[in-house]
Amino acid sequence: MSKDSGPDLTPTIRRHDPPQASSLLPAIAAATSRRCVISTAVTSSESRHADEMMVGKATDADLAKLREMMKEADIDALIVPSEDPHMSEYAPLFQSRREWVSGFTGSAGTAVITVDHGALLWTDGRYFNQALKELGEGWTLMRGMEPGVPTVREWLMKEALRTGIDPLVHTLADGRALAKGLDEVGGSLVALPDNLVDAVWGTARPPPPLAPLRVHDLMWAGETPRAKIERLHAEITGKGAGALLVTALDEVGWLLNLRGADVDFNPVFLSYVIISADVEGTAIATLYIDDIKLGPAGSPVRAHLEAEGVRVRPYEAAVGDVAGLAAAGVSLAADPKKVSYAFGRAIEDGWVSPAPETKRARVDGDENAAGAGKKQANKKAPKALIEMDSPVTLAKAIKNSCELDGMREAHLRDSVALARFFHWLEVQVAAGSSLDEVAISEHLLVLRQRNAGFIEPSFPTIAGADANGAVIHYRPIPGPDCLPITKDTMLLVDSGGQYDCGTTDVTRTVHFGTPSEKQRRCFTAVLKGHIALDRAVFPSGTAGLFLDTFARAPVWALGLNYRHGTGHGVGAAMNVHEGPMSISPRLTVTQGLKEHMVCSNEPGYYEDGAFGIRMENLFIIRKADTEFQFDPAVNSLTCENLTWHPIQRKLLDRSMLSTDEIAWIDRYHRQVWEKVEGRLEAEDAEVRAWLERECAAL
Amino acid sequence: MSKDSGPDLTPTIRRHDPPQASSLLPAIAAATSRRCVISTAVTSSESRHADEMMVGKATDADLAKLREMMKEADIDALIVPSEDPHMSEYAPLFQSRREWVSGFTGSAGTAVITVDHGALLWTDGRYFNQALKELGEGWTLMRGMEPGVPTVREWLMKEALRTGIDPLVHTLADGRALAKGLDEVGGSLVALPDNLVDAVWGTARPPPPLAPLRVHDLMWAGETPRAKIERLHAEITGKGAGALLVTALDEVGWLLNLRGADVDFNPVFLSYVIISADVEGTAIATLYIDDIKLGPAGSPVRAHLEAEGVRVRPYEAAVGDVAGLAAAGVSLAADPKKVSYAFGRAIEDGWVSPAPETKRARVDGDENAAGAGKKQANKKAPKALIEMDSPVTLAKAIKNSCELDGMREAHLRDSVALARFFHWLEVQVAAGSSLDEVAISEHLLVLRQRNAGFIEPSFPTIAGADANGAVIHYRPIPGPDCLPITKDTMLLVDSGGQYDCGTTDVTRTVHFGTPSEKQRRCFTAVLKGHIALDRAVFPSGTAGLFLDTFARAPVWALGLNYRHGTGHGVGAAMNVHEGPMSISPRLTVTQGLKEHMVCSNEPGYYEDGAFGIRMENLFIIRKADTEFQFDPAVNSLTCENLTWHPIQRKLLDRSMLSTDEIAWIDRYHRQVWEKVEGRLEAEDAEVRAWLERECAAL
Repeated sequence: MSKDSGPDLTPTIRRHDPPQASSLLPAIAAATSRRCVISTAVTSSESRHADEMMVGKATDADLAKLREMMKEADIDALIVPSEDPHMSEYAPLFQSRREWVSGFTGSAGTAVITVDHGALLWTDGRYFNQALKELGEGWTLMRGMEPGVPTVREWLMKEALRTGIDPLVHTLADGRALAKGLDEVGGSLVALPDNLVDAVWGTARPPPPLAPLRVHDLMWAGETPRAKIERLHAEITGKGAGALLVTALDEVGWLLNLRGADVDFNPVFLSYVIISADVEGTAIATLYIDDIKLGPAGSPVRAHLEAEGVRVRPYEAAVGDVAGLAAAGVSLAADPKKVSYAFGRAIEDGWVSPAPETKRARVDGDENAAGAGKKQANKKAPKALIEMDSPVTLAKAIKNSCELDGMREAHLRDSVALARFFHWLEVQVAAGSSLDEVAISEHLLVLRQRNAGFIEPSFPTIAGADANGAVIHYRPIPGPDCLPITKDTMLLVDSGGQYDCGTTDVTRTVHFGTPSEKQRRCFTAVLKGHIALDRAVFPSGTAGLFLDTFARAPVWALGLNYRHGTGHGVGAAMNVHEGPMSISPRLTVTQGLKEHMVCSNEPGYYEDGAFGIRMENLFIIRKADTEFQFDPAVNSLTCENLTWHPIQRKLLDRSMLSTDEIAWIDRYHRQVWEKVEGRLEAEDAEVRAWLERECAAL
Repeated sequence: MSKDSGPDLTPTIRRHDPPQASSLLPAIAAATSRRCVISTAVTSSESRHADEMMVGKATDADLAKLREMMKEADIDALIVPSEDPHMSEYAPLFQSRREWVSGFTGSAGTAVITVDHGALLWTDGRYFNQALKELGEGWTLMRGMEPGVPTVREWLMKEALRTGIDPLVHTLADGRALAKGLDEVGGSLVALPDNLVDAVWGTARPPPPLAPLRVHDLMWAGETPRAKIERLHAEITGKGAGALLVTALDEVGWLLNLRGADVDFNPVFLSYVIISADVEGTAIATLYIDDIKLGPAGSPVRAHLEAEGVRVRPYEAAVGDVAGLAAAGVSLAADPKKVSYAFGRAIEDGWVSPAPETKRARVDGDENAAGAGKKQANKKAPKALIEMDSPVTLAKAIKNSCELDGMREAHLRDSVALARFFHWLEVQVAAGSSLDEVAISEHLLVLRQRNAGFIEPSFPTIAGADANGAVIHYRPIPGPDCLPITKDTMLLVDSGGQYDCGTTDVTRTVHFGTPSEKQRRCFTAVLKGHIALDRAVFPSGTAGLFLDTFARAPVWALGLNYRHGTGHGVGAAMNVHEGPMSISPRLTVTQGLKEHMVCSNEPGYYEDGAFGIRMENLFIIRKADTEFQFDPAVNSLTCENLTWHPIQRKLLDRSMLSTDEIAWIDRYHRQVWEKVEGRLEAEDAEVRAWLERECAAL
C-alpha cells in the first residue's frame, strides 16, 4: 500500500512530518473517509453501513450548546483537529470529534468553531467537493494549501482570538507554535481541562473500545519486554534523561510484546508507557491502560506483564503521573512531535487536567523550545523535558531475526491466498461473471482467513478497476462507483494481512483482456523501476530519498511520474506503515536505511479516468556481498524480497527489458514457484497449474 | 573540478551552505593553501614562489601589538575568519588576514585571538597536521568537527567573552547567531569600526588589486545590463522591496556584463551593486568600485556603464549608501547568508563604520531574525530588510541562448587543446621522458593559450599521478611530492579554461601502461555512472540530489563510493563553481534543476595511496523528447553534453558494459571526432591520427 502523498493539512495542525512513526499520513484513508476505512473488509456491507451511522453529526442545537460552553470557558474559538491523543494514523470512532462536530467525513481536516465568527473547516484539495456537500449551514470551507488561504494558525492570529484546545489531541510542537503565535498578536491559547465536544456529544458518542489484549509470542517477537525496556532505559540515561514517555500505540505494543484490537487494521490498544527506574536503579515500565483489557485475574496477559515486571496504572493517570515524575526532579525524554501538549505541559509546568486546585483553564503563551517553562517559579529541575526523537521508533524499525523470520513466514502464508485469489478471479472473469470490486475484495478476505494465524487485513483492500485504479488510495464501497471486473478490465489490487507472525502488503496489476500498448509500456516502466530498487546496492545509512530515484527513473524516462513515495516502512505483526524511514522524494525524511529494516517497493503510474498501475513487494534490507568495501565501517546493503506472487506477462513490453531485467523476472518467478507450490493443498490442483504457467520463464 | 566535500568549518563561522553561489566551498583550494592556489599555472614556479612570500606571517611583536589594540577597543577576543567582504571562494591576497595572523595556510580555518586566553585556530581534519606544523607558539589547534571539540561560537559562549569582529567579513546570519549566543551567556559581540589585523599588518600587507575591467560582449552575454536590472527590480518590488543589495562578485559581473581580474581564475572585480529606482520609478543600478578600474575617461567600460545607465560610486561608500537608503524608508532586499553583518546592521540600525559621530565600537546583542532592530528608536521603516535568496543567483544560473552558445564554443576550442595535450603526453611518456605533474600542467596551459579568446585557467590544474590522484583536490607544486609521469602511471587531469565566450572544466583519467583489473573495474563503474546521469530524463524542478543517485549507483554496486558531489553549477564566462543548484548528496541543496542550467557530471573513485579516477564532462540541462507527458505544466529534462574528448578504452572492462552503454560510448566518440577534427590545424596531423584512433568504435 503506497504512502499518501497528499498535501499536509496546515502547518500548525497538520499531522507530523514522516520521520516519526505516528506521523505517517493517513495513507489508506486518504481518498475516503476514516469512518468508511475503519469499517471495511472485516465486516459485511451491512455492518459497514451500521458503522457509518455511529459517528453521526452535531445538530444546530449541539453547536449552540457548544458555543454556550465556549463562552463559559471564556474562549472565542475552539480548535477540533482530527488527531487522537496518540497521533494515530487510525483512531477509534469515539475520537472522531472533528467528523461529528462538522459532518465532514474526509480523513484530513481541522475544524475551528468560534463564538462570533462562525465555524470553519480546513481541508486540502482532495476533499473540497466532498466537504462542500457535507458541511452544514454556518460552516465555511477553508481551501487549505491554496494560494492566499491562511493556515489555521494564521487565521487565528489574524483574528487574535482567545483559542481553546483539548491539549491531549495537539502535539507539544503544535501547541507551542500556536501559543507563541497567538501570544505575539495579543490572542492567547487556552488548554481546556475538558474536551467540550465530548460534553456536547454526550451519550450519542460511541464508547471507547475495550478489546482484550493478547501476548505476541516471543517466538515472533524475539526479545522480551524486559530486555527492550533495559536497553531503551540505558539509551535515554546516556542522553541525560531519567524516564521515557511512550505515547504512540505501535511503540507501546512493540515494547511490551502485546497486541490489541482497539483499532481496525492496526493491532494496537489505547495506552501509554513510561519507562523509568526503580529505587535500585533497575529499569521498569508502567503501562497506562483500562484494566479490563488485561482479562480476568491470572490471564496470560496479566501473567506476562507480571513476569516482565511491568506495572499497570489506569489510562487516565498518565498525565498526572508524568507531572509527578517531573515534580520529583526526574528528567523525562519525549518527542515534541509525538507527545501531546498535555504531556508537555505536565512535564514543564506540572499542569494536570483537571487540576484539583482549579477548574479554570489557564492561559498559555510565549512558549518555545528555548523559553518554555522558564517563567515557572515552582520548576524543580533545570531540564524537566529532554527532547529527542523517540528511541523506540528506530529500535522497532530494526527487526531482530525472529521478527524477520515471522515476516518471511507471514508472506509465504499470504502467497497461498494470493495465488488462489488471482486464479479464482481469472476463472470467474473467463466464465463471464461480473463480480464487482467489493465482491472480489470480500473473497480475498475469505481466502486469507483460511491461512493459519490470520487475524485481520492490514489495511482496507484497494481493488480498483480501470479508472478507479487511478485513484491512488481508492477503496471500493457498494454503490454506483463500484465497478465490475470484466474481460476488458485492468485491475489494481493492493491488500495485506495481519498474521500472528507478521504483516503483509502487496499490490499486483492485472489485465483480463488485451492491454493497450500504452498500458504495457507504462507497466513495464513501473516494473523496471521495481526491479532497479530490488537490485540496488547502497551504503548503510543512505537516506531512502536517494533510493527513490532507482524506482522512478524508468517512469521518468517515458515522461511520466507518480505522486506518491516508492516505499514505506512496515511493522512486524504491527502497523503496515511505520517510520522513521521511507523511500520517498520527501526531503523531510532523512533517516538512513539500516540493515534489517522492512520496507515496501511500490512504484506506480496512474492515468486519471483510465487506469492505475502499481507493483508492490515488501523487502528486508540486508547486507550485500560486494566485490570491494570502500569503508570498513560501512556495510553495503541490498534488498531481500519478501513477497511471492507472479507478475502478469501480458502486461510486459519485452522490447523495453534488458537481458538482466528478463533474468531477474525469470529468477523471481522460479522462486515464487518453488516457495509457494509446496504450500498449496491437494484441492488446489488448478491453482497449482495456473501458478506453474504464470511462473514459466519468459 | 569536483566540489569540495570536506566538512564545513564551524557552525558559526563556516562558509555558507551550498544553495548560495558564494557559499560553494573552497573546492580547488581544499587540499592546499589559498596562497599556493592563487599562484598556480598562470605563473612560473619562480613567480609562484614570489607569491608565497607575499602574505607573510605575523611576528610575536605583531600579535602583542594586536592585543594592545584589542584592549584599547575593550574586547577580550577577536575573531579572524577566512572570509572576505563578498564571501568569495577565492579572494585577493590582501584579504588573507587569517593566514597572516596565524601563519596557517590551509584554505579553511578561523582564528580567535584573545587577550588572556591565548590564540586558537579552528580547522578540519584535512589540515590538522599542516596546522600543527605552521602554527607558532602560543597557538592552540582546535580540531573542528571532532567529538567534544566546541565550535568557535560554543567556545566563545563558554568563556562568555566580549568578542570583536570586523562586520564586513562575517555574514549577517553568522553575526546574528554570534550576537545572540554571546548575549545569552553574558558575553557580547562588538562590531569594530576598523579591522585591527589590517592596522597591525600595515605596510607589509599586499595592496588591493586594481586590475582594469573589460566589457563582456553582448554577443556572449545575450542580455543588456539594463534589461537584467529591470527584470530583477520587477522581481524584488513584487516581493515588497524597493532596492536590492548585490554583494557576491560573480553576481555583480554577470549583472553588468563586466569582467575583471582582481582574483585569479574567477573573472571578477571587487565591487557591490545596489539596484533601486530613480524618482520616476525607473530601475537603476549603482556600482561601487574603485574608479581607476574603469580606465581613462571615454574608455569602453565607462561608455558601457553610461549607455546602460549605471551610476558609479566609490567602493567604500556602499555601506553608508545602504544605511542612507534604509533611513530614507526604502526596503532593501538582501540575503542574510550572503551579505555581510556590516550591511545588515546598516539596513536595520543605520550603523555605518566608521560612524562620524563616534569611533567607539558599539555593543551588539540579542539579535535574531524576528527581533533584530526592534529596539532601535530611530528606525524609519517597519521592514527595512526584506530577507530573500538573492534573485541574481537563479537568474544567472539559467543561461540564455547566447550564453549557451558561448559555452558550446568555449568547449569546442578547449577540445583542441585537450587533444593536443593528451597526444603530446602519450608521445612524451612513450619516448621515456619523466615529466612531472607541474611540467605537464604548465604545458597544458601553453596549449590552451594558443586558443582564441583564452584568458586564464578556470581553476588550478589538478594533475595527480598514481597516489596523488587519490587526493581529491590535489594540486601539484614543485617538490618531493610532485610525481613523474612514466609508463606505469595512472594519471588524473582535471583542468579548465576561462574564454571570452565561456568557461570549461574537464577531467580525464588515463593509464600509460597496463591498468590493473581493479583499476579497470573501478574506472568502468565510474564511467557507467557518468553515462547514467548523461542519459537521465527527469521532471523539471527535480532537486539535484535525486540525480546524484544515477551516477553513484554503479560505484555503490561494487561496494565503493566517492566523498564528493557528482556535479556543480558552472558560470558562463564566470566562476567555475556557481549555485544555487548542485548534484550532490548534500540535503541542504534543494534547488530544483531547470532548463538551461549548466552543471558538471563527475563521478569518481579514489583509492588512498594508490590511484584516483574521475570522469568529468559539463552539460546543459535541456528539454527531453519523451513518449508521454505526465503533467502539461512540467517538462521533462535531460543533459546536452558540452565536453568533447575521448575516454581511454584500455581502462574499460567490457564485461561490465551493457549494449546501451557501449552504444553511448561509440556515439560519444563519433561526435568527438566530428566536432574536433575540423578544428585541428595542418600541423596537427599526428594529433588527428591519434584522435581518430581514440574515437574508433569499441
